Amino acid sequence: MIELYELAGADPEHRFSPFCWRARMALAHKGLEPVTVPWRFGEQDALPGAPETTTVPVIVDDGHVVQDSTAIARYLEHRYDDGPSLFGGPVGEAHARFVIGWTDAVLQPAVFRVVVGDVFRFVPPDQQPAWRQKREQRLGMTIEEAGARRVEALPAFRAVLPPLRWALRETAYLGGEEPSYADYAVFGAFQFARLTSDVALLEHDDMLHGWRERLLDLFGGLARRAARP
Amino acid sequence: MIELYELAGADPEHRFSPFCWRARMALAHKGLEPVTVPWRFGEQDALPGAPETTTVPVIVDDGHVVQDSTAIARYLEHRYDDGPSLFGGPVGEAHARFVIGWTDAVLQPAVFRVVVGDVFRFVPPDQQPAWRQKREQRLGMTIEEAGARRVEALPAFRAVLPPLRWALRETAYLGGEEPSYADYAVFGAFQFARLTSDVALLEHDDMLHGWRERLLDLFGGLARRAARP
Repeated sequence: MIELYELAGADPEHRFSPFCWRARMALAHKGLEPVTVPWRFGEQDALPGAPETTTVPVIVDDGHVVQDSTAIARYLEHRYDDGPSLFGGPVGEAHARFVIGWTDAVLQPAVFRVVVGDVFRFVPPDQQPAWRQKREQRLGMTIEEAGARRVEALPAFRAVLPPLRWALRETAYLGGEEPSYADYAVFGAFQFARLTSDVALLEHDDMLHGWRERLLDLFGGLARRAARP
Repeated sequence: MIELYELAGADPEHRFSPFCWRARMALAHKGLEPVTVPWRFGEQDALPGAPETTTVPVIVDDGHVVQDSTAIARYLEHRYDDGPSLFGGPVGEAHARFVIGWTDAVLQPAVFRVVVGDVFRFVPPDQQPAWRQKREQRLGMTIEEAGARRVEALPAFRAVLPPLRWALRETAYLGGEEPSYADYAVFGAFQFARLTSDVALLEHDDMLHGWRERLLDLFGGLARRAARP
C-alpha cells in the first residue's frame, strides 16, 4: 500500500496542489492506486518524515518516505521499473528536467498570478496571514490587487505557452504518442487552475485545449473527476 | 561523404548560424566529419533541393538531401543508429522537442535582440535591405535602435535562463552525464552570439558558464576553434 499525502482545502476532498497532481498522475501511470491523505498548510507535525519534511506531496511506500514531486517520480520509475516508463530512459529523464524547470520557473508562476485571488479562498483562515505574507512578497502586491489584475495576468500567462505548442505540433503528448512525466509536470499547473478558479486559461481554439482534454481523460478520467469546490 | 551547407559571412570561413551549429554538433556527435559548403543569404539557387529548399542547414548524404536542423538530427539518429544516440530513444526525442521549441520561441529571439546590431555587419551589402526589412518588422524597431538598446536586451535575455539553470543543477549536460541534441540546440544560440558579437552574454559567476565551456571543448574544441571575424 502506498500512501500519498496531498494538499487539501477546507473540504478535505478538494485536492488542488499542482505538485501533488504530478505525483498522483505518476502513480496512476505506474498502475498504482495510493491511499490519499489530506494535509493542510500548517499541519507540519502530521507529515511523515517531519520535521525534515515540510511540504507535500509525500509518499510512504512500504515504510519508505519520499518527499518532493520530482523525487517521487524518480523513485517510482526505479522501484516500479516493470510498469510503463515515466521517462523513457536516462536521456528522457534528463530532458524532462528541463520541462520541469520551465514549469517551475515560468509556467507555474504565470498560472499563479492568474488564479491567486481565487486560491486564497481555500487557505484555512488561521494560515491566511502567513500564506498572504509569503505570496505577497513574491507577487510584489497584495492578493487583492493581484486578483483585480487577473485581466493583465491572463495574456502574460498565454505569452509563455509557445514552447508547449511547438513541442505538441506533431504528437499527442510531450512524451510522444504516449504521455510521460513531462506531461504530468506541465498538466499539474493546468489542473491547479481548473480546481481553484473558473478562469478560462486557454482560448477555445488553442491547440493546447486538446492536449489538456487528453490528460483529463487518462486513467479513467482521474483528473477530470477531481472534486471542485 | 556528407556535405553540409552552412551560412557564411563575407569571410567564407565565418559560419555563425545557430541552426547550422546544431547540425554541425549533431554530425560530430555521430562521429561524422562533413565537407562544409559556405552559403550566403540570397544564394537560393545554389542550395541542393532548390527551389523547395530555401534555408540552411542542408545536408547531402549519399544523394539524400535533408533540410532543417531538427530534420537533420532525426535523419542522423536513424541513419547512423550505431553511433552515439542524439536523443536516447523516442521519449528523449519527444522531450527534446520541448527544449528545441523553447530555444526557437524564447532563447533565440532573446539572443538576437542582444546581438542584432553586430550581426548586421556580416550580411552581404546586396542582401541588407531585404534582411533589414524582415528583421525590423519582427523587432518593431530599426536595427540601429535595437543595437543601441543592447543594454536593455541583455537583462531581458538573462531573465529567460532559469529553466536552463534548473535543468543543469545536477548534471553536466541537458542530456545528463553526456551531451545530447538538446545541448546542441541550446548551444547554437550561444555560439551564434559568440561568433558575431563581443558581448558577454553570461555574468561571470553564472553556472551556465561551465556548461558552455564544456560544449566549446567537445569534439576536440570544434566550436571553440570556429573562426571569429
